[in-house]
Amino acid sequence: MSSGPRLDFSSDNVSGAAPEVLAALAAVNDGPQQSYGADPHTAALERRVAELFERPVRVLPVATGTAANALALSLLARPYEGIYCTTIAHVMTDECGAPEFYSGGAKLLSLPSADGRLRPEQLREAVAFARSMGVHHVQPAAVSISQATEWGTVYTAAELGALTVAAHELGLRVHMDGARFANALAHLRCSPADASWRRGIDVLSFGATKNGALAAEAVVLFDLALGAELELRRKRSGHLWSKMRFLSAQLNAYLEDDLWLRHARHANSMAARLAAGLTPLPGVRLLQPAEANELFLALPAGVAAGLRAQGYRFYDWPAPAGVEGTVVRLLTTFDMHAADVDGFIAAARRSGGMLRA
Amino acid sequence: MSSGPRLDFSSDNVSGAAPEVLAALAAVNDGPQQSYGADPHTAALERRVAELFERPVRVLPVATGTAANALALSLLARPYEGIYCTTIAHVMTDECGAPEFYSGGAKLLSLPSADGRLRPEQLREAVAFARSMGVHHVQPAAVSISQATEWGTVYTAAELGALTVAAHELGLRVHMDGARFANALAHLRCSPADASWRRGIDVLSFGATKNGALAAEAVVLFDLALGAELELRRKRSGHLWSKMRFLSAQLNAYLEDDLWLRHARHANSMAARLAAGLTPLPGVRLLQPAEANELFLALPAGVAAGLRAQGYRFYDWPAPAGVEGTVVRLLTTFDMHAADVDGFIAAARRSGGMLRA
Amino acid sequence: MSSGPRLDFSSDNVSGAAPEVLAALAAVNDGPQQSYGADPHTAALERRVAELFERPVRVLPVATGTAANALALSLLARPYEGIYCTTIAHVMTDECGAPEFYSGGAKLLSLPSADGRLRPEQLREAVAFARSMGVHHVQPAAVSISQATEWGTVYTAAELGALTVAAHELGLRVHMDGARFANALAHLRCSPADASWRRGIDVLSFGATKNGALAAEAVVLFDLALGAELELRRKRSGHLWSKMRFLSAQLNAYLEDDLWLRHARHANSMAARLAAGLTPLPGVRLLQPAEANELFLALPAGVAAGLRAQGYRFYDWPAPAGVEGTVVRLLTTFDMHAADVDGFIAAARRSGGMLRA
Amino acid sequence: MSSGPRLDFSSDNVSGAAPEVLAALAAVNDGPQQSYGADPHTAALERRVAELFERPVRVLPVATGTAANALALSLLARPYEGIYCTTIAHVMTDECGAPEFYSGGAKLLSLPSADGRLRPEQLREAVAFARSMGVHHVQPAAVSISQATEWGTVYTAAELGALTVAAHELGLRVHMDGARFANALAHLRCSPADASWRRGIDVLSFGATKNGALAAEAVVLFDLALGAELELRRKRSGHLWSKMRFLSAQLNAYLEDDLWLRHARHANSMAARLAAGLTPLPGVRLLQPAEANELFLALPAGVAAGLRAQGYRFYDWPAPAGVEGTVVRLLTTFDMHAADVDGFIAAARRSGGMLRA
Repeated sequence: MSSGPRLDFSSDNVSGAAPEVLAALAAVNDGPQQSYGADPHTAALERRVAELFERPVRVLPVATGTAANALALSLLARPYEGIYCTTIAHVMTDECGAPEFYSGGAKLLSLPSADGRLRPEQLREAVAFARSMGVHHVQPAAVSISQATEWGTVYTAAELGALTVAAHELGLRVHMDGARFANALAHLRCSPADASWRRGIDVLSFGATKNGALAAEAVVLFDLALGAELELRRKRSGHLWSKMRFLSAQLNAYLEDDLWLRHARHANSMAARLAAGLTPLPGVRLLQPAEANELFLALPAGVAAGLRAQGYRFYDWPAPAGVEGTVVRLLTTFDMHAADVDGFIAAARRSGGMLRA
Repeated sequence: MSSGPRLDFSSDNVSGAAPEVLAALAAVNDGPQQSYGADPHTAALERRVAELFERPVRVLPVATGTAANALALSLLARPYEGIYCTTIAHVMTDECGAPEFYSGGAKLLSLPSADGRLRPEQLREAVAFARSMGVHHVQPAAVSISQATEWGTVYTAAELGALTVAAHELGLRVHMDGARFANALAHLRCSPADASWRRGIDVLSFGATKNGALAAEAVVLFDLALGAELELRRKRSGHLWSKMRFLSAQLNAYLEDDLWLRHARHANSMAARLAAGLTPLPGVRLLQPAEANELFLALPAGVAAGLRAQGYRFYDWPAPAGVEGTVVRLLTTFDMHAADVDGFIAAARRSGGMLRA
Repeated sequence: MSSGPRLDFSSDNVSGAAPEVLAALAAVNDGPQQSYGADPHTAALERRVAELFERPVRVLPVATGTAANALALSLLARPYEGIYCTTIAHVMTDECGAPEFYSGGAKLLSLPSADGRLRPEQLREAVAFARSMGVHHVQPAAVSISQATEWGTVYTAAELGALTVAAHELGLRVHMDGARFANALAHLRCSPADASWRRGIDVLSFGATKNGALAAEAVVLFDLALGAELELRRKRSGHLWSKMRFLSAQLNAYLEDDLWLRHARHANSMAARLAAGLTPLPGVRLLQPAEANELFLALPAGVAAGLRAQGYRFYDWPAPAGVEGTVVRLLTTFDMHAADVDGFIAAARRSGGMLRA
Repeated sequence: MSSGPRLDFSSDNVSGAAPEVLAALAAVNDGPQQSYGADPHTAALERRVAELFERPVRVLPVATGTAANALALSLLARPYEGIYCTTIAHVMTDECGAPEFYSGGAKLLSLPSADGRLRPEQLREAVAFARSMGVHHVQPAAVSISQATEWGTVYTAAELGALTVAAHELGLRVHMDGARFANALAHLRCSPADASWRRGIDVLSFGATKNGALAAEAVVLFDLALGAELELRRKRSGHLWSKMRFLSAQLNAYLEDDLWLRHARHANSMAARLAAGLTPLPGVRLLQPAEANELFLALPAGVAAGLRAQGYRFYDWPAPAGVEGTVVRLLTTFDMHAADVDGFIAAARRSGGMLRA
């Protein structure tokens, strides 16, 4: 492990695992256990998540967010149906067609969004068009939203409620890609229930990997009737671990003593600190409010290159219409230190035109 | 953890993980690493496997055997093609249609086998029929064999060679489901190369979970040209871990210092010990030679019930034609002790008609 | 057109179309009509079929039997489910995997049958096994039977009833591949209703092509609730004709004045005449009763070759266990004449060992 | 048949079939013929199309344009790959996801186009982005263009050449949806070869249904190596007619004596006549040049309603940004008369604000 400040701001999945999660793996390595989820750790997880969400749930752990999302969507749309999402949704652009694969060719119908959020009127207009096309167009069955969004923004509880009311009125069920659900919740400061099923979410991809697990997510079903189908689809897709306890244990540790929320609050605070340090620099502009642990910044010419020359890693991002300069994405994480963030800010000051400012 | 003798002989996947594998997870938890496999541990794994197999390979780790098998087969058969296997192949009966899912509907064409092995003449006859049917029948493209087989038997190197020569002459590529490849190798006492590509295997599902990993298998490609497609298919199916180091680390530890072969030799020896202790009992008959770590036994009436009454767990098995009595399957594992085996034998003696013998 | 006797006994699809069907195409070519089925001829067809079956139905015409079967099965089984059929079912062996394609990879689970019929106890045993396997095995959802069967036999009404009662008790819905439904009905001498939904059939592939249409079959739904899904699946698979009137018109003409039943009775009588003429010949054996328009015969050495030397066309068939000699399949058709059949019989007498008898 | 002027301008598929096509069906109804395409009429079709395109081709007839397009695209893109098209492409919006179904979930990647044409620089930019995303994004493999386009425009030969050169440089194969290929060719006044493979088209959906057939299209392969796969995929999808002669005969008649081009020239001239008659009316604006047999017009308030009140049928169309008023689509056909067109023009004059002009 390098001893200097952390240089990698490219993603929250470059981090390792939380020590608590690793310890949990050793703790459940306690001799023979029934396989495929018939173990006490998996049963405990379902109870724990039900308690967390204040209602009965079905919880099926899988190792990746792509699997969680694609399995979830396969429950909500038949092959000849459509799923609304934004044009920049992770399910649309970053999963190599996993939703299409799992659903048997259902169509992702993408709608534009400047800030990552979908709006009720977009759904209404799109559904009206699709219905008017009859059998010639895939018929919409679901909507998938990301919370936090791919622009690092967070739907408010009111926005969620309005969107899901519209969706349900239109006959659409609602999936939430919660790869960064913890970060969204830390921003909203509400209960998990108030950020999900009480606001109309039908199926939640509950992320843990980006926020401290090795490889663990869960599909959380608020409609228990979908459970049997999901179990078969999980097996069929190779996502049912034989030694399931090692997947469930990660999630149990993740939830224990609010580890997940402590992690998320920390990552969010690091993003706020980074934004506070960078936005005063000349020519730097925050493109979206820093609500979770992602920042999108327009940088003056040379700054990105200067940071990279000092070893920093991060992604360029397609510039929205009307934005000048290089746009970059910065991610903060559960295991980042204030000194890491301050190091980045100092390096930015040193880069390109900053010194001259 | 219970302190008495082990009572669960139902599967090798009821075991936990080897301590060496767990330790490896902690060892790679060393700060930020590039995600999705661009880390040094994953690169080291590919080098190590290439060395092990004495030739260049592509190695793509995944968490489950079903994923490894289904991904492998998706490379070898298009949706309108067929894949030969036995009627009892794991891919045929135990994966909830995963090969059909991953291949987009390719058809598993099952052939009977009394001992788990396919024979060259079966392929020749089946392919001749399929070709004669023209476009009306799926056209065969691949054959999938299990090593060790589902009957606990092991193809000899000569049998493998004869089968793959026939397959290749017929235009079929050959997949080996090596969920228990280590156990087969421990029986064959030959090199990994001599049990795979030198005997015509094109793609190997290299198992580790049953033999000491938490959740780790690898698709090993001897045809490097298939690598790019497999990378896309792995991502698309949600089997690309973002924190890939935790998957690669398991496999590195599994291979380090021949841990995998030591485990397999031990499990096999436990099976031999169990067979040696049980077969002298009156009415007990071994249905197949104990070549790996699985035993199939015909038991006199009451013995299975008697064992279960003492807490033992194992599966009943469909009795082959002509076999009287209850047939059971017993699995031995890397972490089983001689005392566990002896305990089972003693319990069998105490059960049902045994005491009267 | 050749002026001699007909030499082709290989299939009922080598025939052309009935003049009445061709005339119907011209009759509906009457200027602009709304496309995609919103025309009066298509509406008339649905009314006519409802009347024929003495109950409300949904009727969706398509051009081929493979399409009708595959679409029907896609309604009855999800991708992770299974469909029982015989090992020689057309859907299993002759459709290049169409059911797997349309269903998104559902698995055809084949059961042996010496005469083409499935039996209730086979379903009960198979379902019990599948349920015992839990998520590891595809879960059965449907059974597909052929009427007449691929061995030219016909389920009696009582056999149908017993099978479908068992199927429904087991939670399976029942599809009937009625490519030769007309021939079966002509044998059974009962009403279409008594041979279908009154005996528990849920979805019927109603064939017309083999019996006088150019290219027309219909999926007949007795569960009207499946109609909307089928309409979308038909469009999605490219089987919704824009000029639908030309498909519906074929079926209207086929049903008009019992043309279909007259055709089928004739084809069946030709098969009976052929059987009566051939079975007295030495060494000729009828393998199954001639219930519809297909004969399976074991022939002495040289007879098949002798017939072919005289220009006759027909298929060899895999000989069932225990049957000596060459097995051939002969089809009779709606447009075959008694003289054609008598010509075949005479040619058989002249062939091979027949003259010596 | 109504005796008044034709009132339906909604689509070219509301027309019936050409008498020559119907006559051809009767002509091939000449006794037994080998089925599934092994008949002389089908062989003649392949020879005829090869001659027409001045090179060897494979020609596989199917009954619908959706089938032709979806089968063609399934040859060009694997499930984990992407296919570029416009946002308004028929394959994108009007086929209920058929390309996704046939390809096993390949993704249609839509690019904006104001006039229905794609441009080389759009492909270059999109491919660069997709390649930069690695395994996370479906990798582009093909581009599908429509000729004539969905806006009624026609790519020039030079435009086609530039686009396909770019596509091939980028590793993409090119499909042309030629549902209205005849209309495009009639506009271009060049040879079929000069409008297809000599301009880089790899696979052509050659339409006939809209232009005079009952139900007949053909997939024309300029890469003969794709033929075997297409034959299997056609069978698997239920698009292989057993009595194939009735499909081939339609296409033979369609091509005989340039019937197809005569039809297309007529339909195009009717569109030109309609445009010439309507555009002088106050407030009427032609949105795209009338290059084929489709017109898109902005109409003043009340005119569309006035036409419909007189019995006319046509579709409203989504108005492009910046266009005021109602936008409608009008189709002209091979069997429309000048009087029909003149009737429409007169009715438009009588409608809404026209009389006041």
